[in-house]
Amino acid sequence: MSKLRVQCFAVSLDGYGAGPDQNLENPLGVRGPELMEWFFATNLWKTMHGLGEGEKGTDNRMAEKGFENLGAWILGRNMFGPIRGDWPDDDWKGWWGDEPPYHVPVFVLTHHARAPIEMKGGTTFHFVTDGIEAALERARAAAGGGDVRIGGGVATVRQYLRAGLVDEVHLALTPAMLGGGEALLADIDLAALGFAVVRHATSENALHVVLAKAAHPQS
Amino acid sequence: MSKLRVQCFAVSLDGYGAGPDQNLENPLGVRGPELMEWFFATNLWKTMHGLGEGEKGTDNRMAEKGFENLGAWILGRNMFGPIRGDWPDDDWKGWWGDEPPYHVPVFVLTHHARAPIEMKGGTTFHFVTDGIEAALERARAAAGGGDVRIGGGVATVRQYLRAGLVDEVHLALTPAMLGGGEALLADIDLAALGFAVVRHATSENALHVVLAKAAHPQS
Repeated sequence: MSKLRVQCFAVSLDGYGAGPDQNLENPLGVRGPELMEWFFATNLWKTMHGLGEGEKGTDNRMAEKGFENLGAWILGRNMFGPIRGDWPDDDWKGWWGDEPPYHVPVFVLTHHARAPIEMKGGTTFHFVTDGIEAALERARAAAGGGDVRIGGGVATVRQYLRAGLVDEVHLALTPAMLGGGEALLADIDLAALGFAVVRHATSENALHVVLAKAAHPQS
Repeated sequence: MSKLRVQCFAVSLDGYGAGPDQNLENPLGVRGPELMEWFFATNLWKTMHGLGEGEKGTDNRMAEKGFENLGAWILGRNMFGPIRGDWPDDDWKGWWGDEPPYHVPVFVLTHHARAPIEMKGGTTFHFVTDGIEAALERARAAAGGGDVRIGGGVATVRQYLRAGLVDEVHLALTPAMLGGGEALLADIDLAALGFAVVRHATSENALHVVLAKAAHPQS
C-alpha cells in the first residue's frame, strides 16, 4: 500500500526542524543550513548539483532511501517559496530552478489558488487549497501506487503527524544548535500516535532514526 | 577555574531528558532507561557494577570524561530519591546503596532540611535549602579547585542553564522515543546563553555533542 513518508528530516540538538525568520535569503531559516550539513556532503546531493563525488556511507544511503519508490510529494507553502498571501504574479516557481529534483507531481498546500506549473524533468507543481486530507488524496491518486513524501516544512509535517496520516518518519538528529526556530515535535506524542523506532544508524555527522507505525513495520 | 558541567545527559529523539511519572520503580521515569542504553553498555558502567567488561569506544570515553576532574556534584531532590515533601525519617539514602558512585561531596537541592549523610567511599550528601546559587557556592568551596557536575534531573539542569551558571554541557542524543516526559531544552535558547557546539562524536547508539561558553572553549 502507498505510504505517507517523512524522510531526511533534520532536527537540531535543541529540537528545531528549521531556523527562525525564513525568507528569500534563508529558505531554511537563519542557521537552518547547519541542519543539512550531513546531507550536503552526500554523493546524492553532490552529483545532483554537479559538485563531484560525495560520501557514500550511511548518510548517502539514508538520503537515497528518501527518494526510493516515490510517486508524489506534498510541500507546505513556505517550503515552496518565501511569498506569503496572494500570488502577485506567476514568476515564482520554487527554489529549485527550471528542473526541480522531484521528477513527479508535487502538491503545494496554500490558501491561494494558482494554475499548475509544469517544470522540466517531470515535476509539476499543483496548488491545493482545500486542506491536507485533500492534498494527500490527490497525491495518492497521482502517485500511481508509489509512496507520497512530505517534503516539509515543519508546520506541514506537524499537521500531518497530528492528523495521524503519516506512516513512516526518518529523522536525522544533528549536532547543530539553533537556539530558536520551528520545534518539530513539541507537544506531539509519537508513542500515542502509534509510532515505534524500527531502526537507527549513525554516521559521523548524524544519528538517523526511522519510526513507523505498528501496521507498517519497515523491513 | 572550576567549571560547572552537565555531562552524559541523554536526550530522546523527541527532546525528553527523563520519562514521565518518576517513582521508586522508575527512577528515570517510565521508559527513561531507554535513554541510558548507550551508557549501560560502557566499560565504565559495567565495571562499576561488577558486570564484566563493556565497550571501550566513544561512549565509554564520553562516560569517563564525565567523571574527570570532579570535586563535587549537585543533584535535584528528585534525582536523589522518590520522596516528596518532608523527610519522614532518615532511611532514604539515595538510589545507589552504601557506596554511591560519586566519591566526593554531593549537594542535594531540597526545601526540607536534613543532616548530612556520610556514605562509604567518600560520598557525603549535603542538603541545601537556600537555592541553586547557594548550592553552587558550597559545591565550589567543597570541590577544592575541581569542577562541579550537575547530575540532574531535568528541572535542576534547566534551572542552572537559565540562570546562566553552566559552563559546559555534554548531551547524548539517542534513538529513544519517549512520547512524553520532561523536555530538556524547551524554551531554553542555548545560543542566547552564549553556548556554541565545540565538538561532536558518534557511536553506534548515540550522537554526543559538547557545548561550551565562548569563555570556556574545550580543548
